[in-house]
Amino acid sequence: MDAVTVADRRSKGDVEPLVRLARDDMAAVDALIVARMQSQVPVIPLLADHLVAAGGKRLRPLLTVAAARAGQPSNAGGEIDAAVKLAAAVEFIHTATLLHDDVVDGSNLRRGKTAAHLIWGAPSSVLVGDFLFARAFELMVETGQMRALGILARASSVIAEGEVLQLTRAHDLNLDQETYLRIISAKTAELFAAAAESGAVGAGADEACVRALRAYGLNLGLAFQLADDALDYGGVSEELGKNAGDDFREGKVTMPLLLAAARTRGREDAFWDRTINKGQRTEEDFRRARELVVGTGAVVTTLDTAHEYADAAKAALKALPIGEWRSALEQLADFAVSRAA
Amino acid sequence: MDAVTVADRRSKGDVEPLVRLARDDMAAVDALIVARMQSQVPVIPLLADHLVAAGGKRLRPLLTVAAARAGQPSNAGGEIDAAVKLAAAVEFIHTATLLHDDVVDGSNLRRGKTAAHLIWGAPSSVLVGDFLFARAFELMVETGQMRALGILARASSVIAEGEVLQLTRAHDLNLDQETYLRIISAKTAELFAAAAESGAVGAGADEACVRALRAYGLNLGLAFQLADDALDYGGVSEELGKNAGDDFREGKVTMPLLLAAARTRGREDAFWDRTINKGQRTEEDFRRARELVVGTGAVVTTLDTAHEYADAAKAALKALPIGEWRSALEQLADFAVSRAA
Repeated sequence: MDAVTVADRRSKGDVEPLVRLARDDMAAVDALIVARMQSQVPVIPLLADHLVAAGGKRLRPLLTVAAARAGQPSNAGGEIDAAVKLAAAVEFIHTATLLHDDVVDGSNLRRGKTAAHLIWGAPSSVLVGDFLFARAFELMVETGQMRALGILARASSVIAEGEVLQLTRAHDLNLDQETYLRIISAKTAELFAAAAESGAVGAGADEACVRALRAYGLNLGLAFQLADDALDYGGVSEELGKNAGDDFREGKVTMPLLLAAARTRGREDAFWDRTINKGQRTEEDFRRARELVVGTGAVVTTLDTAHEYADAAKAALKALPIGEWRSALEQLADFAVSRAA
Repeated sequence: MDAVTVADRRSKGDVEPLVRLARDDMAAVDALIVARMQSQVPVIPLLADHLVAAGGKRLRPLLTVAAARAGQPSNAGGEIDAAVKLAAAVEFIHTATLLHDDVVDGSNLRRGKTAAHLIWGAPSSVLVGDFLFARAFELMVETGQMRALGILARASSVIAEGEVLQLTRAHDLNLDQETYLRIISAKTAELFAAAAESGAVGAGADEACVRALRAYGLNLGLAFQLADDALDYGGVSEELGKNAGDDFREGKVTMPLLLAAARTRGREDAFWDRTINKGQRTEEDFRRARELVVGTGAVVTTLDTAHEYADAAKAALKALPIGEWRSALEQLADFAVSRAA
């Protein structure tokens, strides 16, 4: 049973309904992002624009806007100025972490383009990341919403902790699944959770909705990251916007690799020890690793786990008012996982 | 006329009166710093402690506390909880920028100890910097003081801009004095200004005092940085806590170097072109550069400029109530410059 067969039985989901609903709000977010990444220092907007223009789906600020709208029907048509600012701040935090991540990992590609540190140098990437992070907090201050600010400040320290934890345990084949989930929960899912939670708080949603949207974001983030991990052993570079096999090439242990290593114990220990623990890897080794990861069903198990989180994300939405926003968020949860199939 | 002669005619100042007055407040700040740099991820407190324990004079949080006390006599004995939290946040922001700076500059020493990135690696330094920066904002959120938060958020983006500007213009012998002052104003003096301003705001000082304390901090920061620049051509490693000659070794243009290059134009162009523009430098070249910087009076001119800023800092204090705090801040301004003599 391969991943495609499994996925065929499930709803594929779609990001488009949410993108369509949020079009005007996201146009405001985009305009704010462009305005606030300006600086008298020329390299800052150049470098920031390299990532921001490459864009991607802007999933995280989309969550902030959607949470502001979905939390209460009265928000469906009105102004959500605070949430728009918080959404831009969320994208700045995300962009800052991408810049620093790529320096830390020595990655070559980001969003299908040459990584910024290879063009402008690692020092510029570090410092422009710092600039965007600071600008994020300036935007939050403008909203006057201390609670939303606290949520995103806390998320930022949790993300950094997750990154450090991953850095120190990245090449550890004995990493247990629980620690791995703790890492991706901190480094990826926390920003999804905080993006949604701060949007809800910024729009004045009631506590039940705030909790529901945070839970939705957290589970969506876990589903998203696990699907990404699976894609790294099953996707193609063009679709991925990054090099397939990057995780393996960097010797980074993710759930598919951990499962494959466990399932080939006693048989392939020398291979994993050489490629992961000792860090001696060739392109031929990646093909072998991919065979083992796919062949042992590790990709399917990873995607099954991703689907469980996507289901949990959808379940959390039951606390929200029924409507097109809630429905669009449900479809996003399915989409986050099915893109990997 | 050498630097010592000039300095002898001026008040030497002293940091001790302020350290003494602020002893209890700073003990609270230190305890908070240690408590808030803790993390489940072992390398974070280890790396943070390496810098924090090395300590230095904690000049910036000292300014925050002093501004809270000096702004209004009624604060002389009472609680200043918000300012204590803001002071810890200021030190975290400062520590984060030191960690990132040392990675960016490839520095070997910091506060007299091996730079953190040489022990734990550049990736850890980048990420722990991010963690401390995020923790700074968490602390600020706890104060509930949005205005103080805005001041420090703005300072953080100005600092990052100054760092990028310095990075892109660091080896430019044609840098004019105005641009150089703009760089150190952003990368150094802004945090001194924001540290003092946020302390005053956090303690509820009136607007005249807030403005005065910001002006004091800004001018003190400029004086401090210019004295530091002069020290790099005239100090000894032990006293400096960093390698004397670091600026030259990194090919970094500072005011003493810019002045010396201008004053030896037509005579030493080939030397400066080779060592700064082309980046070909030996230890023998540093001794030659030092001779030129001292011999042309560039150190003295730099220190004279530093004294002008120190005087401006003291003048700003006239708006504050007369008292021991104001007097201690005056002595700090003199001290900031005289340590270079």
